[in-house]
Amino acid sequence: MNAVTGFGRPSFVATPAVEFATSRVASYIAAHDFAHPTLVMDVDAVERQFNALSDGLMTRTGRAHIHYAVKANPHPAIIERLVGLGSGFDAASRGEIELVLGQGADVDHVSFGNTIKKASDIRFAHHAGVTLFAADAEEELDKIAENAPGTRVYIRVIVDNEEADWPLSRKFGCAADKVMTLLGRARDLGLIPFGLSFHVGSQTRQARMWTGTLDQVAAIWHRANEAGFGLQLLNIGGGFPAFYGEDIQHPTSYAAEVMGLIADRFGDVPQIMAEPGRSMVADCGAIAAEVILVSKKSEDDLHRWVYLDIGKFSGLAETMDEAIRYQFVTSRDGDETGACVLAGPSCDSADVLYEKRPIQLPVTLRAGDKIIIRNCGAYTTTYSSVGFNGFPPLDQIVI
Amino acid sequence: MNAVTGFGRPSFVATPAVEFATSRVASYIAAHDFAHPTLVMDVDAVERQFNALSDGLMTRTGRAHIHYAVKANPHPAIIERLVGLGSGFDAASRGEIELVLGQGADVDHVSFGNTIKKASDIRFAHHAGVTLFAADAEEELDKIAENAPGTRVYIRVIVDNEEADWPLSRKFGCAADKVMTLLGRARDLGLIPFGLSFHVGSQTRQARMWTGTLDQVAAIWHRANEAGFGLQLLNIGGGFPAFYGEDIQHPTSYAAEVMGLIADRFGDVPQIMAEPGRSMVADCGAIAAEVILVSKKSEDDLHRWVYLDIGKFSGLAETMDEAIRYQFVTSRDGDETGACVLAGPSCDSADVLYEKRPIQLPVTLRAGDKIIIRNCGAYTTTYSSVGFNGFPPLDQIVI
Repeated sequence: MNAVTGFGRPSFVATPAVEFATSRVASYIAAHDFAHPTLVMDVDAVERQFNALSDGLMTRTGRAHIHYAVKANPHPAIIERLVGLGSGFDAASRGEIELVLGQGADVDHVSFGNTIKKASDIRFAHHAGVTLFAADAEEELDKIAENAPGTRVYIRVIVDNEEADWPLSRKFGCAADKVMTLLGRARDLGLIPFGLSFHVGSQTRQARMWTGTLDQVAAIWHRANEAGFGLQLLNIGGGFPAFYGEDIQHPTSYAAEVMGLIADRFGDVPQIMAEPGRSMVADCGAIAAEVILVSKKSEDDLHRWVYLDIGKFSGLAETMDEAIRYQFVTSRDGDETGACVLAGPSCDSADVLYEKRPIQLPVTLRAGDKIIIRNCGAYTTTYSSVGFNGFPPLDQIVI
Repeated sequence: MNAVTGFGRPSFVATPAVEFATSRVASYIAAHDFAHPTLVMDVDAVERQFNALSDGLMTRTGRAHIHYAVKANPHPAIIERLVGLGSGFDAASRGEIELVLGQGADVDHVSFGNTIKKASDIRFAHHAGVTLFAADAEEELDKIAENAPGTRVYIRVIVDNEEADWPLSRKFGCAADKVMTLLGRARDLGLIPFGLSFHVGSQTRQARMWTGTLDQVAAIWHRANEAGFGLQLLNIGGGFPAFYGEDIQHPTSYAAEVMGLIADRFGDVPQIMAEPGRSMVADCGAIAAEVILVSKKSEDDLHRWVYLDIGKFSGLAETMDEAIRYQFVTSRDGDETGACVLAGPSCDSADVLYEKRPIQLPVTLRAGDKIIIRNCGAYTTTYSSVGFNGFPPLDQIVI
């Protein structure tokens, strides 16, 4: 099997540092058969990525701390390894808090980062010892004050992030004009207005793309401190990229450059927290899947349809709107290729992965062939449906 | 609590025949608290819907048989009730075949209706006694001939279906120019070329919308019989509507009218099979959910954001592109309403249910309020992710 080619500038991109074809994941998949689509994750690769990001984050300020965004891949073996490395954790729910504490995480390094929390879940987190919560609205602060009195809160800010591959919606955060109001309300409620958070946007491929966002947040940060809030924490969120076929910056140089941009704008920040999720795990796993059918709809069709045993509802949800372009490896690579529409196995007409921009696959591909989908370590197992069409959820094996 | 109003022409629409406020589902939800979002299904209502559809389908031809599309809601209690009523089943996978046989279904009334099947799953179905399979491509026929020799196959045809609320993609079926080729190949492979199937498109709200589709399929049907294939089975698929706020025709009159259109075009068809899924169960259940947060992003915002404890990845996947407009019932109905953006609880910016077309909800709504989402019996539990963001999958209770 060949690795996907055409990366360009190998010293600059993250993934080809280890050739996929010779990776532990590729070897494992080659040596095994799988009854169902299976994500194979290399936890040593996760450790290398954690270290690469940490090295960059210690540049200039020397005090940024990683809080892994558990939602990207919550497999207990990954959490356990990260606990051993001293990682903190960004939890989206009660379930994720239980998970990381169960794997031995230090509760002082767990933040409840979802701005949308049930009162009962805030109470649970408070009793479990969590002391850091996100908020972006009055009602959320009221719930936190009632159910986790006296705790630390950071306010999530909406920023314009047009440089990201996927700018986020306005779902999370408040506009700049509300930040002072919320910090003041937190203080009035007996909470500790501890800092600010933001998200630069998913898959921000180059560090320099952070500039505009950081300018906006720094202006708010300084205004808050001038108003006497004495903020302690800057939570820079995630947005660090993974490799999906387009060049990305090496994680260490990327993180170092972001820290430099922060130091230039914020000066001396007591605590900086980063929440990588996708960038920590995406490149560390691949899905072993199978071709179920290759067909043409009409004698005149130019494109083939290729159907896999995995689709949009069994792990590949991020193909929605064809946003992520996954990379494929087949046992027939090297044969002539042709364009095809790629679809999943369910009886759902929306379960089509790539149609507007067809992908190139070997013309010799046929039912029963193994196909590997690379860089699938993030946001696959958890998006998988519980049993759509009677298909089991995506399996995961950590090696 | 009040039922949603504004239906118009009550004798013509399906749902208001039972006022929601006085339904068993509404009573059950009112009488219970739920720790997580929960779909409450009334299996007696499923039985009534089965009977209403059956009555219509027996019109004119006297021989149409329902094969419930299991994927719409595979709860064992629903399958068991339908087995007792004499329903057949359309299975999308090995898992669904195991499910229905486990609930006592007659294997002679189970068809393997997915056109995309693993060879090993075809073999399983064959050994389990299934003798009816769908196909739309040469390679699929080859797999069926090898793993289920001598069995019956029907060819799925692509039709233009511009009248449906959601015309299907070209994912399933073959163009008219390939049907004779595939029927011939099936015969050459020792299979029984048994019939044709098609799908008129999801949520085809009025029976008269079937006309154009039936014209296309009838032309192919007659051509195949003139060529000597002696087809036995016309599988008319699903597409029967559920109520999502727009008038739909009563199921009995709808089914009867479709059967009339078929009789006029096909003449004497030995066997007719219908595969209702959504229309069988959607109106028979409602989800009990909770408001987690109500907020404004900016002091100047006109719209509120209302966040629920259920979202796109925990059961409401069909809000994708805001396709389905669910109906909401709250304990504050009757108070003044205002427009709001509705979103789910996950840390995913795509987890927004309605934003382009905001919905009207009481301005008094606040965190902790119970909210009921009506007509959620179809395509909710199974689309639910296995644990995105650490949230458990959608619960289901059948009463």
